[in-house]
Amino acid sequence: MPYEYEKNGAAIYLESFATIRAEANLSRFSAEDEQIVVRMIHAAGLVGLEDSVQIAPGMVTAARAALDAGAPIFCDAYMVSEGVTRKRLPADNDVICTLRDARVPQMAADMGTTRSAAALELWRERLEGAVVAIGNAPTALFHLLEMLEDPACPRPAAIIGCPVGFVGARESKEALWEAAPVPSLIVEGRLGGSAITVAAINAIASRAE
Amino acid sequence: MPYEYEKNGAAIYLESFATIRAEANLSRFSAEDEQIVVRMIHAAGLVGLEDSVQIAPGMVTAARAALDAGAPIFCDAYMVSEGVTRKRLPADNDVICTLRDARVPQMAADMGTTRSAAALELWRERLEGAVVAIGNAPTALFHLLEMLEDPACPRPAAIIGCPVGFVGARESKEALWEAAPVPSLIVEGRLGGSAITVAAINAIASRAE
Repeated sequence: MPYEYEKNGAAIYLESFATIRAEANLSRFSAEDEQIVVRMIHAAGLVGLEDSVQIAPGMVTAARAALDAGAPIFCDAYMVSEGVTRKRLPADNDVICTLRDARVPQMAADMGTTRSAAALELWRERLEGAVVAIGNAPTALFHLLEMLEDPACPRPAAIIGCPVGFVGARESKEALWEAAPVPSLIVEGRLGGSAITVAAINAIASRAE
Repeated sequence: MPYEYEKNGAAIYLESFATIRAEANLSRFSAEDEQIVVRMIHAAGLVGLEDSVQIAPGMVTAARAALDAGAPIFCDAYMVSEGVTRKRLPADNDVICTLRDARVPQMAADMGTTRSAAALELWRERLEGAVVAIGNAPTALFHLLEMLEDPACPRPAAIIGCPVGFVGARESKEALWEAAPVPSLIVEGRLGGSAITVAAINAIASRAE
């Protein structure tokens, strides 16, 4: 066994977070928000990501209160829902993705949109006070904003808006930040994705590093 | 509904890939490899990723032949296995992650390593000719290299080695590239992760864009 490498999970986290804190420019974040951003940088392997992260005042507090009260977490993709570390959740919270619900393909066809967007219609019943995590599809984030334009639509407690990519990702996150229907966390621009989104959820769910 | 955005999934892919091909520096890749790299950039939302991608000659051909022959795909994390698009698989291939197997915590303790690394011991029986995708844990990739130092260990057909992060990620991928036990694909340095890894699998599984 000629390979020398750290095999202790706790030591790996400790060294990773120390490296990030030594290299990243985290001074504009509150102590509470900084923990979230460090974990997002860790998941991406990318110092510099912090420059694109925006966290609304009170977002982390609102999301934590919701989770402590047992709120579900709604995710736009299974890569997001699968990544949430269950043992970090404070109230054995449900982590829900509706993308594979049998009704979704027909709903998407009827609505003239993607399955990722249509799947959000199945969130309404439990959306009030929930935590929403969109880490894949810009169309899902746009559709959520459209749903929330209706005053009758239940309000989530907080939104993590981190869709990734080259078509609509930047625009959907700008739209969330401007509309600000509830306190949100975004990654500006093209960057985002399931790993970064999951890191934000896991950091919000528990302060443990 | 004041938001104007593309809602057609096929059009979104088409425009995304056109943007990537206009912006990224893909000239050093073969036509076959280029398709893989485009999808990896897409998943990361990051033009420039291509500079860190290394694909061994014959890797894509070997991985495709394995999948066509019905080989399983072994993944180090559920975020990887969940992300694989089943309908792109040519032979309804099994996509396997053993991280939550009940034996793994004790195995990790006995071996003095992470659960991610220990879980690979459960791959041996079906490892011969399989496709391996490591998108999270450097310790898993190092452990795979240690397993393959034993001539008696079954050989996978190809390895996607894209663990992410600040401790061991760069080193584990360099070690894979140097040892080259089978044809491999890596992302050099800290970048990597489940989304990029899944994109590589999905692109290898089917040429369809």
